[in-house]
Amino acid sequence: MNTKQIAAEKAVELIQDGMIVGLGTGSTAYFAIQKIGQRVQEGLNIQAVASSKASEELARQFGIPLLPFADVEVIDITIDGADEVDPNLSLIKGGGGALLREKILAGNSKRFIVIVDETKIVPALGTFPLPVEIVPFAYELTVRKLQALGAQLKIREANGTHYITDNGNLIADCHFGDITDPETLHQQLNTTPGVVDNGLFVHMTSQVIVGHADGTLEILSN
Amino acid sequence: MNTKQIAAEKAVELIQDGMIVGLGTGSTAYFAIQKIGQRVQEGLNIQAVASSKASEELARQFGIPLLPFADVEVIDITIDGADEVDPNLSLIKGGGGALLREKILAGNSKRFIVIVDETKIVPALGTFPLPVEIVPFAYELTVRKLQALGAQLKIREANGTHYITDNGNLIADCHFGDITDPETLHQQLNTTPGVVDNGLFVHMTSQVIVGHADGTLEILSN
Repeated sequence: MNTKQIAAEKAVELIQDGMIVGLGTGSTAYFAIQKIGQRVQEGLNIQAVASSKASEELARQFGIPLLPFADVEVIDITIDGADEVDPNLSLIKGGGGALLREKILAGNSKRFIVIVDETKIVPALGTFPLPVEIVPFAYELTVRKLQALGAQLKIREANGTHYITDNGNLIADCHFGDITDPETLHQQLNTTPGVVDNGLFVHMTSQVIVGHADGTLEILSN
Repeated sequence: MNTKQIAAEKAVELIQDGMIVGLGTGSTAYFAIQKIGQRVQEGLNIQAVASSKASEELARQFGIPLLPFADVEVIDITIDGADEVDPNLSLIKGGGGALLREKILAGNSKRFIVIVDETKIVPALGTFPLPVEIVPFAYELTVRKLQALGAQLKIREANGTHYITDNGNLIADCHFGDITDPETLHQQLNTTPGVVDNGLFVHMTSQVIVGHADGTLEILSN
């Protein structure tokens, strides 16, 4: 097992009968979904909601029952990966492009559990480019606003054209240097017209489970 | 001429040769676009960008040259209507559903001129329902977040189904009672996962041109 997988399996131990579980997106979340599927086959009785079409498809494959959002009052626990984790457990997420849906799940969860390998733990966010989801309309103007906030950026591409999110938007991958005040930057970005959301997750993390290269686990919480 | 039309024509006098002009959306903006078209026919040399497909179509009909956003550094002046105007010239906009595109233009304009009739001037925003644009994904969860912020709301409908904005999103028409601190509410809304933007325009207005029922005009500025 690699370190991500060890951390993912530890996180899945937190799930109990009767819970509504949020499924993250990406390579680390994949291990969690796989393990949840195994526990469901062994009799665990839960229902899940997914943060992407890809994760929903995985859940179906692994036999995890899915719940429509109309039937969800609150999510008990969401398990997801992250691209960077700072000492306050603020995150950068969204390298995979699903930041908005992942944030909706995280923001509606009693517990938000992040699983990473040790390479994702950083003294300050910002080496990994911060994804900012922006509407396609007049995106050239929104790009200038982001630059005025200090970003060096590229519009994400895929197959030689603009990458389009599950919500029909563009991603601007932004470098702001060290992000020492993620809360303020988060607010500045989200009050910029044309910005839908951004990959900073601030005051959302309940616990980070870190898988070290030597196979040991570390649990960080605020 | 009705009072909206008188106010709109006054606003259009502010436009000068060589300007890039932002075109609003809705019944009041219609009069402005019509008047701009007339001035273009008389020799005014400007280029325009539009805040909706409807206004773009109108501009074409009236012979107003349109500019792609890629060629726009900054908009010189945008003229648009509003649903409510408070004493600090904060606005509620978006009854017509184009709030996000209108805000992108307003936020990228050197001057943002608002034209209204006197019925839109209010002591506090909030009688007119505040439109909040939200992504369709898991909107049921976002609705609960808005309710937790104090909103009584309805998802806007059209032809018996959900109304869909030009950007592919839903509109939640929200009543928050009197909105005495629009800046804080704006921030709370836009940092809620699932919210794309909202109809509060704070610190954006350069000037409000008010058409009174007796045919006189009043100009408000900060």
